[in-house]
Amino acid sequence: MKKNFEIEKKIPGALGRAGNIYTPHGVVQTPAFIIVGTKSTVKGVHPDYLKNIHTQAVLANTYHLYLQPGDDIVAQGGGIGAFMNWQGPTFTDSGGFQVFSLGEAFGTKVSKVASGEIPMVSETDRTQQSKAHKLAHIDEEGVTFKSHINGSLHRFTPERSMEIQWNLGADIIFAFDECTSPLAGEAYQRQAMDRTHRWALRSLVRHNELDPEKKQALFAVVQGGRFEHLRQESARILAEMITEHGDTFDGFGIGGSFNKNDMGTAVKWVNEILPEDKPRHLLGIGEPRDIFEAVEQGCDTFDCVSPTRIARTGTVYTTYGPINLMNARFKTDFSPIDTETPSEPSLKYTRAYLAHLFRAKEMMGPILASMHNVFFMVKLVADIRQSILDDRFYEFKKEFMDKYYGGK
Amino acid sequence: MKKNFEIEKKIPGALGRAGNIYTPHGVVQTPAFIIVGTKSTVKGVHPDYLKNIHTQAVLANTYHLYLQPGDDIVAQGGGIGAFMNWQGPTFTDSGGFQVFSLGEAFGTKVSKVASGEIPMVSETDRTQQSKAHKLAHIDEEGVTFKSHINGSLHRFTPERSMEIQWNLGADIIFAFDECTSPLAGEAYQRQAMDRTHRWALRSLVRHNELDPEKKQALFAVVQGGRFEHLRQESARILAEMITEHGDTFDGFGIGGSFNKNDMGTAVKWVNEILPEDKPRHLLGIGEPRDIFEAVEQGCDTFDCVSPTRIARTGTVYTTYGPINLMNARFKTDFSPIDTETPSEPSLKYTRAYLAHLFRAKEMMGPILASMHNVFFMVKLVADIRQSILDDRFYEFKKEFMDKYYGGK
Repeated sequence: MKKNFEIEKKIPGALGRAGNIYTPHGVVQTPAFIIVGTKSTVKGVHPDYLKNIHTQAVLANTYHLYLQPGDDIVAQGGGIGAFMNWQGPTFTDSGGFQVFSLGEAFGTKVSKVASGEIPMVSETDRTQQSKAHKLAHIDEEGVTFKSHINGSLHRFTPERSMEIQWNLGADIIFAFDECTSPLAGEAYQRQAMDRTHRWALRSLVRHNELDPEKKQALFAVVQGGRFEHLRQESARILAEMITEHGDTFDGFGIGGSFNKNDMGTAVKWVNEILPEDKPRHLLGIGEPRDIFEAVEQGCDTFDCVSPTRIARTGTVYTTYGPINLMNARFKTDFSPIDTETPSEPSLKYTRAYLAHLFRAKEMMGPILASMHNVFFMVKLVADIRQSILDDRFYEFKKEFMDKYYGGK
Repeated sequence: MKKNFEIEKKIPGALGRAGNIYTPHGVVQTPAFIIVGTKSTVKGVHPDYLKNIHTQAVLANTYHLYLQPGDDIVAQGGGIGAFMNWQGPTFTDSGGFQVFSLGEAFGTKVSKVASGEIPMVSETDRTQQSKAHKLAHIDEEGVTFKSHINGSLHRFTPERSMEIQWNLGADIIFAFDECTSPLAGEAYQRQAMDRTHRWALRSLVRHNELDPEKKQALFAVVQGGRFEHLRQESARILAEMITEHGDTFDGFGIGGSFNKNDMGTAVKWVNEILPEDKPRHLLGIGEPRDIFEAVEQGCDTFDCVSPTRIARTGTVYTTYGPINLMNARFKTDFSPIDTETPSEPSLKYTRAYLAHLFRAKEMMGPILASMHNVFFMVKLVADIRQSILDDRFYEFKKEFMDKYYGGK
């Protein structure tokens, strides 16, 4: 693999750094907030707008696109980027998380789950759609699951995930992993982690068969739940993993299953071990506090549905914390969404207008709120990057946190 | 009133013409398709896009904005144009049509309707939301109705409609009228028409009190249903109507209650009588065939919700007629929406992508389809205008109709 990552500058006394990830569709300047476009569309936001505000990359979901419209159709459309008219860098996740959290209950009895296997429950803090009764059937070879759309039966293996992600054509893809519940005990975390490592190797082998020219960068996903020694072991094993042809991972993802409270600690355990010269993606992180923590502890990219998801409920980010436009006081508030954030919606519309749109259930409400929130997060992380380059990360962090959380 | 309309060129042998309506927010080059933005937003379409594609004007609905967010809030926001960040010309309708078609049933018994009055039923071919059981309570002074949002009781009079429309601040507004059912017989049509004329005079008087500088142009609405002599009488009376201060109408609307089949004929009856030097707006017309007919028979502007409403169901206009993207054959159709229509969605996306978005229930489906359809209609009428200026209206009509309707 050609060099795909360079560090520009480090945060003094921490693992964090500003850098550049090179992809066939351009450079991802890190740290970068990757905007989620689950079904090959960022809900309500035009790709041209994403480009204009310097969005670094879009992440789509393998599970969703496999089911609808099908990875073969996305491939015919030129891959997720061309399909959705986004010319910049793209990511796809492995499908593992959604298979376990969104797949419908497999069969009616838990006893249908193979003996010796523990049924997976979803990680409820990573998706509101998750329900504990949604189970997938897991075995050494892969996972069988039912579509959340029509209940049809499907099977993912590490090899299949690679083939689907090859069809989807993203620049950065992830090895197929098992995303465990934070409720799972150490014994199961070890069992799942060991399997994730075996699946990682199979993913790596299959990926290099599909992509000998190495157009796509493959990231392994570090698991291990909340257990320090498991996290460290997972990082070490994946960092050293190499195929018989000499292929290694191009970067690393850090999977869920830690509490938000100890996220920074868990990330630090892992990033102290992962090779410094490869990029690291923290999956599913969107709260500003968590982003600062993740950056400081050495993560380069992260993704989250929050900016557009909360926008659809009328919540917009401001410099002084989030506000919900359904609050009665905004009905006659003719000030901008946020005077300190020059997003197009904030410059051109008032809170009162957005409050009207949300109350009237007009599409333009979620559209404008989503545009604003995406701008806010892209700019926040771009500002964090600049603060690292300017050697003032800690000052910027304090300034931002003081305003945003108001001392909370 | 200063001169607000000029004719540039006429269609030989017909009543049609190309012209310009001058408003405080710019010129409406006619014929023009006025895009409907019911609640001060064109559903799913950014105002900047409307501007970029040379949309001539936006029409908002008095009834809806009065109820939500309230005309006082729109006034504080600078009027519908500033509120929604649309800098061009604006129209508001009188509220009459919606009061009769959308207001909830007043009371539970028809006997609550004042004796001697016939309950109004909606004109079902002008809105899919209309239901015959939705009644309003009408008397000589005005109309009492219930909000379709929360059932609260409200009252519109001609004076109140003028006050609300003054608050909404559109450039072109309409006198309060009673929109009759096409099912109503001649006796009721006469009764309603006579009342509409009395309401027109009251609207004219009140408008000139509110707007002595004549910032807003007031159009009267010609009624009379499907009866030639009533239509002619209505046109004559409104054309000659003058207040004791010498104020007259600045233009004319032509209200519904004719079948689409005889629309051209009914429009001709009216436009042969209306003064040639004032603009004429045909309310609620959006089918291309009807637009050609309306233009030929002397209408300058028209509005319709169709472009965005059908877009939300997946139907897009093409040069060869409308297509519905939910049709299975579009799932793998990687051609543009319409190769002959250079709308942004048609240039940048494929039918297969839109088909995916609609099947996946993604907002971007209705957004892109609405943008395309608005472009299509704005361009169609701009092309009609150009054909008049180039003295080739009839040729253009034939070319377009042959392709669009395929001889049907």
